[in-house]
Amino acid sequence: MLKYQQTADEIERYIEQHELKQGDKLPILEELIRQFAVSKTTMTKSLELLERKGIIFQVRGSGIFVRKTNRTGYIRLFSTQGFKQNLVGHTIESTVLSLEPIAATDNIAKNLGIEAGETVYYVKRIRYIDGKILCLEESYYRQSIVPYLNREIVEQSIFEYLETALQLNIGFSDMYMHVGKLSAESARHLDLTEGDPGLTIETVFHLTNGRPFDYSVITYHYEHSHFVVQANGLYL
Amino acid sequence: MLKYQQTADEIERYIEQHELKQGDKLPILEELIRQFAVSKTTMTKSLELLERKGIIFQVRGSGIFVRKTNRTGYIRLFSTQGFKQNLVGHTIESTVLSLEPIAATDNIAKNLGIEAGETVYYVKRIRYIDGKILCLEESYYRQSIVPYLNREIVEQSIFEYLETALQLNIGFSDMYMHVGKLSAESARHLDLTEGDPGLTIETVFHLTNGRPFDYSVITYHYEHSHFVVQANGLYL
Repeated sequence: MLKYQQTADEIERYIEQHELKQGDKLPILEELIRQFAVSKTTMTKSLELLERKGIIFQVRGSGIFVRKTNRTGYIRLFSTQGFKQNLVGHTIESTVLSLEPIAATDNIAKNLGIEAGETVYYVKRIRYIDGKILCLEESYYRQSIVPYLNREIVEQSIFEYLETALQLNIGFSDMYMHVGKLSAESARHLDLTEGDPGLTIETVFHLTNGRPFDYSVITYHYEHSHFVVQANGLYL
Repeated sequence: MLKYQQTADEIERYIEQHELKQGDKLPILEELIRQFAVSKTTMTKSLELLERKGIIFQVRGSGIFVRKTNRTGYIRLFSTQGFKQNLVGHTIESTVLSLEPIAATDNIAKNLGIEAGETVYYVKRIRYIDGKILCLEESYYRQSIVPYLNREIVEQSIFEYLETALQLNIGFSDMYMHVGKLSAESARHLDLTEGDPGLTIETVFHLTNGRPFDYSVITYHYEHSHFVVQANGLYL
């Protein structure tokens, strides 16, 4: 972790510990530099990062303020680190329904930018949030990038395993969202009724070198999933 | 518009004009600096901006590559500029159902951080994308910030009016998403059936000075709205 990221984390903890709320003013720049004992360049980068993460907002000529949503029980929608980072404070558990190498179908191949027939690890899980069904997840990992997965790994955070054990650098992702009526099979897994509403998010995850390594299709239980997104400026 | 933003736009046009695809390599940094006739600092900032916007990705020691999703017909989910920026290439029309000053209810007041009873402009519209119903929108603008709205304005882009005519600086926004079953009234407006699925996004828009000025509740027609999000790194 780079210095400015570390400092950003420290400022985030400072905001937590002081129980600051939206609109609360942070110390001025010079005071932050002194307090966190970093250079002006580092502090500027830390503040930019915190702004992008939706933790603060800066008002020219006026100061640095805390940004915080006033609703609880919402899941942060985005993070390429898989669920875990988004769900701090919640208990996440998984039931593994399938775990096997399969030949990529046309659809899987297209999303992963590979040839149909190439081997992918197919993982099917039900994920629970605080004991309630959160979603049904079907993921396809390129075996040439993720050579091995077992039940123990996929019961926990797969992304954590990829980053720590396999030393993969997870980069950007493309997410496609749509809402529809649940199929009989999805409904059965989610303990809902066929035709009930469902939010489906398909994500193609890329390594930092741009290679897609995971295509995942997640259908959320509409009663147990409320999302929050903190957007900035012209784009997120 | 600042120089680096202008350069970023030019690079974006360059990518469009050359019909570059995901993974296509851009010229090296030195060549880009020469070609777009800017300083290294400006080019670095332009590239950072394009990376955040999901237009490019940079691979250390390897180069700068084009990022592009391979699906069409998807709406970009995020932009605090209202719909318009997200819907380039689509025709957007609105039917105004209501436009009137009302007293803020408790819920509206809470979201706008004001006292219940304060006057807000209530705007109710059906929005169409390429002739099809896209969504039902109910928005509440603080009258102390947006003193005047008329039918002509709300039939077009309200945000464009706020930025150009009122010179408001639109900053960040908090979005809350959930999926549910349509009420009879929503279904009627969307030309769907009660109980059909619906994605509802509530957004609180803030000025750059942190003051909330618009609380909007949008319910999307599930068959006419597919969204794409391009996420980066640990956060969007």
